[in-house]
Amino acid sequence: MNLEGKNINFVYGLNNTISVLKSNKYSIDSIKIMIGGIAYDNSLLKSILFEYKTDIEYLDKKEFNSQFNYKHTQGIIVFFSGNLLSDFNIVNLNSDKENICYVIIDQINDPQNLGQIIRTCECAGVDGIILPKHGSVHLTNTVLQISQGAFTNIDIFMVTNITETLKYLKEHSFWITGLENSIHASKWYEIDYKKKIGIVFGSESKGIRKLVKKSCDFLATIPMQGEINSLNVSASISAVLFERSRQLDIKKEN
Amino acid sequence: MNLEGKNINFVYGLNNTISVLKSNKYSIDSIKIMIGGIAYDNSLLKSILFEYKTDIEYLDKKEFNSQFNYKHTQGIIVFFSGNLLSDFNIVNLNSDKENICYVIIDQINDPQNLGQIIRTCECAGVDGIILPKHGSVHLTNTVLQISQGAFTNIDIFMVTNITETLKYLKEHSFWITGLENSIHASKWYEIDYKKKIGIVFGSESKGIRKLVKKSCDFLATIPMQGEINSLNVSASISAVLFERSRQLDIKKEN
Repeated sequence: MNLEGKNINFVYGLNNTISVLKSNKYSIDSIKIMIGGIAYDNSLLKSILFEYKTDIEYLDKKEFNSQFNYKHTQGIIVFFSGNLLSDFNIVNLNSDKENICYVIIDQINDPQNLGQIIRTCECAGVDGIILPKHGSVHLTNTVLQISQGAFTNIDIFMVTNITETLKYLKEHSFWITGLENSIHASKWYEIDYKKKIGIVFGSESKGIRKLVKKSCDFLATIPMQGEINSLNVSASISAVLFERSRQLDIKKEN
Repeated sequence: MNLEGKNINFVYGLNNTISVLKSNKYSIDSIKIMIGGIAYDNSLLKSILFEYKTDIEYLDKKEFNSQFNYKHTQGIIVFFSGNLLSDFNIVNLNSDKENICYVIIDQINDPQNLGQIIRTCECAGVDGIILPKHGSVHLTNTVLQISQGAFTNIDIFMVTNITETLKYLKEHSFWITGLENSIHASKWYEIDYKKKIGIVFGSESKGIRKLVKKSCDFLATIPMQGEINSLNVSASISAVLFERSRQLDIKKEN
């Protein structure tokens, strides 16, 4: 059963499926569980499944594995429908939350990377991720899977025009920082990430597009110490977002 | 041609193959290039290939793809032999280099993760990566490939006993910090990463083993801001290593 590209959302494994089942954002189409598998005996899952009794199908090991030939299913796969994307137009940019952070990713192609980035952003308390409709990988099942359920707990937007979106954010008192590989940029920790901010990252091969870069208030860089000179974009994002966490934490303490 | 598990080292793609060809650590067994592919016309590669003329085989597109069915080969694959691991016994821990950092990874299973970690460590100027011989993924071709050539430029050690190795480091004036998910640990940025240090990370599912944790001088944590509560280990490593870079940078400036 090859489900990729069939416009059906699914996730597998305990973390992912529990996140989807606990979220009230989606409607659950069906739940397949392997008899005797890891999920079968999981007590947290059992308490959640109570609500979905009629949607569950129990399969023996052979049948489960022949239908769902993925690594690390832990014996559970959940099919669901609903909006994976949030509507940027209804975001309240005038919220009186003191610190707001959007991560903007200009044209990323690798679903593994996007999945990791969603996971890192959720862990770092980012308010939303903004992707362009064109030239970016979409929220495929691979992306959802790699995010380990993080996609259920963070707003993800796809916008037609990134530069227009940056302009809109700036009109709402956001400061925009773009990360680029350049000796002329500030160091990543010299940027003030407090209050309302947007942080723009480009694709690994091409960086941020020219027009998008022009819309940034600040440019920052993470200087490389080795010879390979190519930090993975999801590693850059982690370095920058936890520098933000550090700044917010220190401010809270003072 | 399925080459995995055949004890032959190979990498593909421009970044990876150029790193291997430029390094003097390995002996090059053969170089396969697709006629008309991306690598075929690359001028940097051409200048390096001059040295290896006799080892190169040019294949037409159909033949190349039928033999090497990988994504993103960019039309080049390089087979090589040599030691991928460095010998920990000959490391000069009394070096008068002011700042030395070893990253110790206690039992990581995912080759994708290990590949990314090697890449991040190289970019962050880490001096070496220490893995246990047992219970860790080894330097498979997948790991090498994901590292994007970083494995050629950083010492990677496999040791029999991690706690013994930590003891040895401590005898040589290293301070050891372990990362763990605990509210009792210090925050990751409260640790002093200057001078001679070792930083221990555990596997994502199990964390650091008890005995290994006991050998640590300090324990640090990265508090999660979301609900998923599971930062990828390679994202944690990036956050911690670039906090170290920040501390070294700031010290240099003062």
